[in-house]
Amino acid sequence: MHQLIQHIQKITSETDVPADAVLTFFEVHDFKKKAILQEEGKRCSLYFFVVKGCLRLFFTDQNGTEQTQQFALENWWLTDLNAFRTGRSSAYTIQALEETEVLAITVTDYELMLARFPLMEKYFRLMYERAYAASLLRVQMISRMPKDEFYDLFRSKYPEFMQRIPQKILASFLGFTPEYLSELRKKETRRREDQ
Amino acid sequence: MHQLIQHIQKITSETDVPADAVLTFFEVHDFKKKAILQEEGKRCSLYFFVVKGCLRLFFTDQNGTEQTQQFALENWWLTDLNAFRTGRSSAYTIQALEETEVLAITVTDYELMLARFPLMEKYFRLMYERAYAASLLRVQMISRMPKDEFYDLFRSKYPEFMQRIPQKILASFLGFTPEYLSELRKKETRRREDQ
Repeated sequence: MHQLIQHIQKITSETDVPADAVLTFFEVHDFKKKAILQEEGKRCSLYFFVVKGCLRLFFTDQNGTEQTQQFALENWWLTDLNAFRTGRSSAYTIQALEETEVLAITVTDYELMLARFPLMEKYFRLMYERAYAASLLRVQMISRMPKDEFYDLFRSKYPEFMQRIPQKILASFLGFTPEYLSELRKKETRRREDQ
Repeated sequence: MHQLIQHIQKITSETDVPADAVLTFFEVHDFKKKAILQEEGKRCSLYFFVVKGCLRLFFTDQNGTEQTQQFALENWWLTDLNAFRTGRSSAYTIQALEETEVLAITVTDYELMLARFPLMEKYFRLMYERAYAASLLRVQMISRMPKDEFYDLFRSKYPEFMQRIPQKILASFLGFTPEYLSELRKKETRRREDQ
């Protein structure tokens, strides 16, 4: 069974998913490491579901530094959601951090699919409900927590990220300088050695 | 027609809403200014839709300061979404900032209503899609923007907030000290007088 169908079953707790009909709305794309899936300033017409690999979404700030805002590992969805929803151009670039396989859906097909399958409304309602709740926690962590506590929490919540995401990109996502992140990692290693 | 039904029509672009059947899932509650709708640490069993008035969601930090995380004006939904979804106790207090009328729904009725009316799945999918997209922008504003630019953007996007929310609470929400917010407002007044 396709990984997306498994994910729909898991999230919705429904076993009766019209797999073939749902999958016809998607195209499979494979990207090499560092490939660009969406360019900043271009029309944002695709929504990606990561089957295998890892994506990041970033913009380039006024100093020319790439600022990473979001990641997507296996079974995560990624697009510039504001642009995708409204038909505007993307404010971000989306790039593959590893060799990555995605399912891609256009905005027209996304709407057709939701209109045709109430189950997909339920799936996306549950996905967004989780994502929104997680995003509210992220706001609180960024704005209220001391940086080292935020780092500890992030590390315990997303251990996979720590292994798969390059340091420089992870630092940008956390709002740290690469030097500060490296200092935190050294402290963490010392702590482990002391135990 | 009830305000919630109008809102469902507006968000979903569907005119055929089973109004009476949907409204039976809700209870009407009226709260005085400063009333507490949800206490921190207590079970979070209600989701509120603001018919009239204004709510805020906050926690008390280790210094005893109330930190406001979210607001809800008319037609907004508010609860501790992480707690509501999972049945945990609320990490926040919810308080009325004005005399406020809400519709309240329990988690059991929320799930029954969604299971019974695919239209409500669509409504909440669209609500969360927007809320999630807005929350992603907020993360970017908080973490990347100079504070005065963030304030200008917030002011232009939510002019109603500026009038209805007490200064001290607004400062906490923006992550400013009350003094810094007052300084920004003075600058803004001077700018307007200069024009």
